[in-house]
Order: sequence, then structure tokens, then C-alpha cells
Amino acid sequence: MDTKTIGVLGGGQLGRMLVEAASRLNIGVVILDNPEDAPAKQIQATHPHISGDFKDPEKIKELAKSVDILTIEIEHVNANALEEIRKETNIAIHPSPLSISLIQDKYAQKVHLSKYNVPVIGFIEVPTKEHIYDAAQKFGYPLMLKSKTMAYDGRGNYVLKSENDIDQAIKFLGNFKMPLYAEKWAPFKKELAVMVIKSINEQLESYPIVETIHKDNICHLVIAPAQVDSVVLDEAKKVAVRKIFVNEIAPRPHNSGHYTIEACETSQYENHLRAILNLPLGSTALKVPVSAMVNILGLSSDLEETLRSAVIALTIPGATVHLYGKKECRKGRKMGHITVVANSIPELYKRITPIIRAIDKNEAPPSSIQPLVGIIMGSDSDLPVMKDCAVILKLFQVPFEISIVSAHRTPDRMKEYAENAHKRGLKVIVAGAGGAAHLPGMVAAYTPLPVIGVPVKGKVLDGVDSVHSILQMPGGIPVATVAINNSKNAGLLAVRQLGAFIPEFAEKMTEFLKKQGDEVKTKDKRLQEVGWENY
Amino acid sequence: MDTKTIGVLGGGQLGRMLVEAASRLNIGVVILDNPEDAPAKQIQATHPHISGDFKDPEKIKELAKSVDILTIEIEHVNANALEEIRKETNIAIHPSPLSISLIQDKYAQKVHLSKYNVPVIGFIEVPTKEHIYDAAQKFGYPLMLKSKTMAYDGRGNYVLKSENDIDQAIKFLGNFKMPLYAEKWAPFKKELAVMVIKSINEQLESYPIVETIHKDNICHLVIAPAQVDSVVLDEAKKVAVRKIFVNEIAPRPHNSGHYTIEACETSQYENHLRAILNLPLGSTALKVPVSAMVNILGLSSDLEETLRSAVIALTIPGATVHLYGKKECRKGRKMGHITVVANSIPELYKRITPIIRAIDKNEAPPSSIQPLVGIIMGSDSDLPVMKDCAVILKLFQVPFEISIVSAHRTPDRMKEYAENAHKRGLKVIVAGAGGAAHLPGMVAAYTPLPVIGVPVKGKVLDGVDSVHSILQMPGGIPVATVAINNSKNAGLLAVRQLGAFIPEFAEKMTEFLKKQGDEVKTKDKRLQEVGWENY
Repeated sequence: MDTKTIGVLGGGQLGRMLVEAASRLNIGVVILDNPEDAPAKQIQATHPHISGDFKDPEKIKELAKSVDILTIEIEHVNANALEEIRKETNIAIHPSPLSISLIQDKYAQKVHLSKYNVPVIGFIEVPTKEHIYDAAQKFGYPLMLKSKTMAYDGRGNYVLKSENDIDQAIKFLGNFKMPLYAEKWAPFKKELAVMVIKSINEQLESYPIVETIHKDNICHLVIAPAQVDSVVLDEAKKVAVRKIFVNEIAPRPHNSGHYTIEACETSQYENHLRAILNLPLGSTALKVPVSAMVNILGLSSDLEETLRSAVIALTIPGATVHLYGKKECRKGRKMGHITVVANSIPELYKRITPIIRAIDKNEAPPSSIQPLVGIIMGSDSDLPVMKDCAVILKLFQVPFEISIVSAHRTPDRMKEYAENAHKRGLKVIVAGAGGAAHLPGMVAAYTPLPVIGVPVKGKVLDGVDSVHSILQMPGGIPVATVAINNSKNAGLLAVRQLGAFIPEFAEKMTEFLKKQGDEVKTKDKRLQEVGWENY
Repeated sequence: MDTKTIGVLGGGQLGRMLVEAASRLNIGVVILDNPEDAPAKQIQATHPHISGDFKDPEKIKELAKSVDILTIEIEHVNANALEEIRKETNIAIHPSPLSISLIQDKYAQKVHLSKYNVPVIGFIEVPTKEHIYDAAQKFGYPLMLKSKTMAYDGRGNYVLKSENDIDQAIKFLGNFKMPLYAEKWAPFKKELAVMVIKSINEQLESYPIVETIHKDNICHLVIAPAQVDSVVLDEAKKVAVRKIFVNEIAPRPHNSGHYTIEACETSQYENHLRAILNLPLGSTALKVPVSAMVNILGLSSDLEETLRSAVIALTIPGATVHLYGKKECRKGRKMGHITVVANSIPELYKRITPIIRAIDKNEAPPSSIQPLVGIIMGSDSDLPVMKDCAVILKLFQVPFEISIVSAHRTPDRMKEYAENAHKRGLKVIVAGAGGAAHLPGMVAAYTPLPVIGVPVKGKVLDGVDSVHSILQMPGGIPVATVAINNSKNAGLLAVRQLGAFIPEFAEKMTEFLKKQGDEVKTKDKRLQEVGWENY
């Protein structure tokens, strides 16, 4: 194992979680930051830390002398000082001072991304007020006005709704003392975050794509994996099409990746260490089905009020509280976070609801849920039969989708549906068809998922034709066939399949079976009471 | 949140992991132990620790003065000194000094357990050599000779194979300077560990039962959940029947629970803190399907040699390395541990094999695996048909069991099988039956699991009778029916159901479908080559 010591510029919560990962690997860490009791310093007693500003060249040099590798937990460090050290010494610095300075300037960052054909929203430098008018003419209103540097968590940004806002915006952003740029307004449905780890020897791994929900411009909630269609996810991973824009990049562990500590096979913090130490990168796979992260932001200077969500979290299964050891609580300050894991998205949303309501009692939990079951049918004439399946899934609160996909009339659509179903997170497909009922079998030929076939009774042959077409599949491609027209049982079978792995559905199925039995007993009781002649 | 400070007697790895959990909750911890750089002290810089022996009454008093609650990470502390402090001050001490002294004396512990009808193996005090002869007469050889106190990790134990060993054993165990007792030899199949958390206000939670595998009397491997039948697990939880014996109890976080950090919704360390702080206990559920823990024990004084398993673990998906920051490596010393998580037991065993082989290149991975699929059939005459299902499951390396269970001839056995299947870890049942084929439907009536029905063709009616009996289930109880005699497809359907949640099976299914397609293409190629007349 490596016995190198790492110096970190910055001693906040990201540094603290880095130290946590480092301690488990016996890696020494020295922190440079002003407070004697900075969060990262509190949990490392084996090395003397350095008190000072992470922008102070002398202090950075002092740090460099006592460690083998330099890294950062915040990008607003002194990149020039780091570049000096890089030139003068042999010390490894990751990320490179060049990358850091590029990231510090959001305008330069976007120029760089554009150069490499990465999609970004339209943007332009605005060195004077006149340039702002030009930008507005080009991009229209609302228009984003941004400071090139030192902009984060909503700071250094101003939304111009009309010409009338310009003077106030210029004043708010410091009268051009920090250079500004303007950005086309980007209406968006969701904000996604992708974390990628690259090690020194160019090994590359990416974490699952997550959905980030901001409140007052600060990250509030992270959902992993993002509840969006796989097509969008593929786009996000490739950043290849215009529906997705890169907003910004941070060359360090990120708030959107805190959830990885509890939810992934290797945390972003440990992987940051492994990357800069040139150790093999760890698996970035989720080890739990789903996860969410809620930031604990100071509600006021009252720590107790701020920690209401943490107190609630202690009562929630699957919730883990992380407090950062910050002594002073301020409105908007990141005081900690809560990670929640669960077996399914509905369970996850149920678990996070009391936590987010402890922060804001009116907040609605997120509502976008990717379906677990896909119901398809060959024709809308099958809908009256297939509805029973939907009723059951709704009763069990299983997220599902329902569509018309015909094997004979839309063969390509069927192929596309079947081939992508498992990539979109579906766990089982229920397919209903009548007559020469090819849909279930053909879908089964294209998907590795289990397919449940519902033989729909036609006008002739009493459904026997459908049964034979669905049931008598050749060896190699199975279809789980249920009784004629019995899409209710198809729904129940889907619930049982989910319940084998998601305990809440198994519990509901056990209740359902009991209730069903009780109904029969009730009917018998009535039969005994009123007698068979009057029943 | 609580702002109490906790004092811990002992600063080893258990203390270190307690500190880790405490830091996340902003709970201050003060450690009492001799080394200045004890593992637990290394990761806590906010409080001054105390250097001294955790048996020294003065030092314990000093610790008590600086904290609100006292706890332990090792039971070999000075219980009398704690009892003094309890009498003289108001400080909370958990566990109580009384419990600690009871646990310190393994003989007293067993007397206590017996008093409360907890099953323990036969034991008797042996204050003199004569008493050892008496014990041997009572219990036979081999006979365990144990020191009442300070016995752990195999220390303080001696196995008497015959009378001839007695003198050597007495010498080894200190010539009765420490009182001894004898214990009947307990032949055992497996050693299980159950961790229970009780909070101050008597809230009680238990973790999943794990299997512990010892090597040279020290814990080597932990498997969670234990791969034993649910009937045994129920017994272990209740400790109600004589097939299971309590061996020993530790009133603190335990080596067998390290895995909970990565694998459970709340770690044993956080729950220990919550218990003694009277906070709500956290969920003890597994958040990953399965997990294992491998201890990193010193192989020699060479740390690099000892850390071979950790270096390998960095390349294994799902593995997390914990090193304890101990400076001196000694043979047998606990230097760290590795936790591995996985989606299934076969995947877990595959992942841990290179790790345990880095410790001992000849070690075989554990072999006991609970089945995921249960194949049942109404009669042995169905076996020729049902074999195809077994062949497929073997091909996909799915753990399964196969039995004869008749609905009509063994209705009680069928009910018992179906009712317990999900408790035993089965995820799907494949049931084959012919004629008035009741087995699949009746099993489905008793289980919340998905049931796949295979209609077996009888001597008359061509299997149509079986199809109708299995397929035409009433609404409410579904059976996934496959083609007549096609138990191959039943196996494939089971694999698809597992694959929806266990990625390795989905990957294998995708490969299988491709290979199946390739086979058809090969046949076509031959048809084109040799022509249809010669094919």
C-alpha cells in the first residue's frame, strides 16, 4: 500500500470526507485552511495541519514541503502559486494548476468546452454595459449575467428579466471589477450530474447519472439514479446531442456525489484518493437500488432549528446523517447532509418526505418515477382486458407504463421497445394479445427480461388460438402465460416477481392474499346466515 | 441533536470505528488507552485524549470527569473501578459495570445464561486437577479446558484429547492461577453470530444473522446473511431449541459486525452510540443483497506482506479496505479488515476468492449457498421432464434445489414448503405436474413468490389436461405457465426473473440469446452448404 502523504488545499466538508476515506487506507493527510478547527482537521490527529489561507503562496509552499502530493477540495485556490511550485519542485499536483485555473474562470471553461464540441448554451463576454445590450439582442430576455470567476452556489449570477434590470445587475455583480459574461437563458426540465474519475494513468470510470434539484440556487436534493429515460441518460453520458447542455464542471469531489459514500461500491472520496495516488480505481456501481441526498443548510444562526431534518432522519430507515462539525451556523451554510437508501424509488420518496418536510413543511417530494413494469398490448381493443393489470399495479403502488405496441403493424417499434426495456429500468413486461398472438413471444425474443403473456379472447375460437400462440413457445424463449383474459393475474405475477427482491411488494402481496381469503370467509358467513336458497 | 461527550475505555480498532460514527454525528469522543497514537485517537483531533491503562482506576476517574457517558470497546477493563464511579457520580455507564464483570467471567456468563434457560453446552468448574478427571468422566474426550477470564481469540483455551494432555494443559493455562472450567466438546457445523442492540429505553433491534468462520481460533471470515436454512435462523434468533448453543457474548461492537458499515442501513458502531445516547435506534436491515468481511491479520512483522490481501481488494468491485493505523505489525494482530458486497452469494464468493487466496493461496472459498430457485414436481415420474430446468439453472450457475412434493399425496409437506420458501431465500418456484396438475396452483396459493408451472404430458390427453389445470387459475392467484413439457423454458424464465435484479444473470441471458441465434445461423450455413436434399 502507498505510504504517501497528501496535502489538501481547503479544509471544509469535502476535505473532511476525503480525510475519512484516507484514514481507512492509512493515508496521511495535511490540511491547509484558516480555521484551527476546520471540519477536515477535526478528524485527523496524526499529522500537524497548517493554519493559513489556501490562496497564500507561502502557506501553499509550506504545505508542499510536508507532503508528497497536493490536491484541492475547492477550486478557488491560488492556481498561480501551485504552478510556481510545479515548476520549482517535483511534487505531484492533481488536478493540474492549468486545469484549476481553467475551471476557476467559467467563461474560459465554456470556451474550452466549445472548442471540443461539448454542447454548452450560447454565451458571450460582456466587458461593458454596451456589450450587455448586444448580448440581449442576440439571446433575448431573460438573460443570465454571470461573473467569470468566484461564482458558485448562485453567487455571482444575476437573471435579467428586461433592460430595466441591467443597472442593478451591474451593481450587484461588482461594477465590472470582476469580468462578466452573458448566457442565453436555458429553460430546463431537469438538471443532471455526471461524476467521472480519471486516474493518473488515464483509467476512466463514471458514476451513475444523478438528478440534482436546487433550491435558492444551492443544491438541495440529489436522486440516484436519475429518474429519466435511458435515452436521455445515454445522451448525458456521451454529451452528444443538443438536448443536453453542460452547465459547469468541478475538478474535485462534488456535492452531487456525497450519496456515493453509502450507495456506491466505492465513494467519490476514496476514488479521488485512488486516482491521485495512481491506485486502481474502485467500482462506481450503485450497491443499493436507489439513493437520495438532502443537504442540511443553515436555516438561521440557530443550529438546533437547522438540525431538525437530521433529528427526523434518525427515525427513518436507510437514512445516514453526516454533520460537518462546523461551529457557527449561518443561513444557507452547508452544515451537513443526509443520505437515504431504499429498495425502490417509491420507497425512497416515502423515506425522504419527512426529511424534506422538516426543512420546509410545504415541500412536495419529487414525483418523477421511472416505471418498473411495462404493459403493452397489440391493439386498443385489448385495453378493456389489460386494464385489470393496470388496476392491480396501481393498487400495489408499482410504477408502470402502458402502451400500444403491435407485433404485426409496428414491428420496428416492438423491437425498439423490447431491446431497450431493461435499459430503461423495467423489470418485467406484461404483453397482451389475441388471435395469432405474437406480441409476447416476439418481445421475449428481443429482451432478457421476463415477459408475462395475457391471451386475449377474440370473437372466435374462445381464446384458445391466443393461448396456443403465447404458451407453446419453442425451447429457448420463455413466456409466462396466464389464463385467458386474466390480466389481473398478470399484474399479480408481476408484483410477485418484484416482491422477490423488493420487500415492500412481498409484504403487500402477503396482505393481499390474506384479505382475499377473508373475503371468501365473509361470503361463506353470509351464505350460512341467509341460506343457500336466498344467497 | 445530542451534544454529550462520550468516554471510551480502549482505543483499538473498535474504538476507532466508534469515533468514525461519532464524528459524522458531531459527537465528541475521548479515548483512554496507553498508546499516544492508538487507532481510535488518530482520527479525533477535537478532544484531548487520555494516555493510560483502561484498568487504572485513577485514569478511568480522569476520563469520567471529562465526559458525560462512559462506554467500552473491550470488556477487559476494570469493572470494579467503573462500579465505584457509578456509585460516586451521576455519570452514565453503558454497558453497566455489572454486565461487564459478568461478561468478563465466561463461567459466570454461562451460569447466568443457564439460569435463564438459554441453551449452552454442558460445563463445570474445575478448581483442581481432580475436578478435571471428574469432568472428563462426565463429558468424555475431547474436552475443552478454559480459563474463566481473559480468554479471547483462542487464548485461554486448551483442547484435551485424552488424559495424557491434562498436565500440559494445566501448565499452559497458568497452573490454576486463573480459575478454570471444563466444557463438553461441541461438534458444530457452523458458527453463527447474532448482534442485538438494546437502547437505554429498552428498544431492541437485531442485525441479520451471520456466519463466522474462524482460522487458528481467530475470526477470519464473516458471511451475511448466514447461508443456513431459515428454520435454523429462526432457532438462532429465538435460541429456543437444543440444536443451537450460545457460545459467548460480548457487550460491545463486535468483529462479526464490521460488515455493517458498508452493508447495513445503520452500522453497529452508530447504533452503539445511538443506544447509549438514547437516540432512536437505526434500521439494522441489510441494504445490499449479501456481504462478507475478511480480517487482515498480521502474517508476520512485515506489514507489506500482511497487506497483500488489501492490495488485491483494491482491484475487486464491491470491496472496501479498512486499515486500523497500527504502527507495529505482528503475527496474528488485527491490522484491518476488508468488507465485500455483492448482488448474490455466487458473485460474493467469486469476489472474495482472490482476497482470501492472497492470505493463503490454498484456501477454498466457502461453498454453502442457499438456493435461489426451488424446483418441485408431483412425482419422480416427472423428473425426466423437470431435469431440463435443472440443466439450465446449472448452466447459468443459479443456486437451486430440487425435490418431490405432491399436492395430493403430501399436502402438508406442500403447504410447509410453499409457506416457508420465501423465508428460506428462494426467489422463484418452478413446479411441474401432470394430469389434474394441482401442484403449481396450490403452491401459488400459499406463497407470495412467483410460481412457474410446467404442464407435464401424461399418457392420455396429450398434456392438455395439465395445461388447463395450471393455466386457468382463478383471478387472484397467478401461475406463470410455460409450454407442455418445456421445463427448459421454465428454467430460462426463472433466470430472467433473477436477472431483472441480479445483473450477472441478465448479462448471461443476453449472451445466451446471442449464442442461440448464432446456432441457428450455423445451421442455416450448413443448409446452404450441403443443400436441403442432403441436410
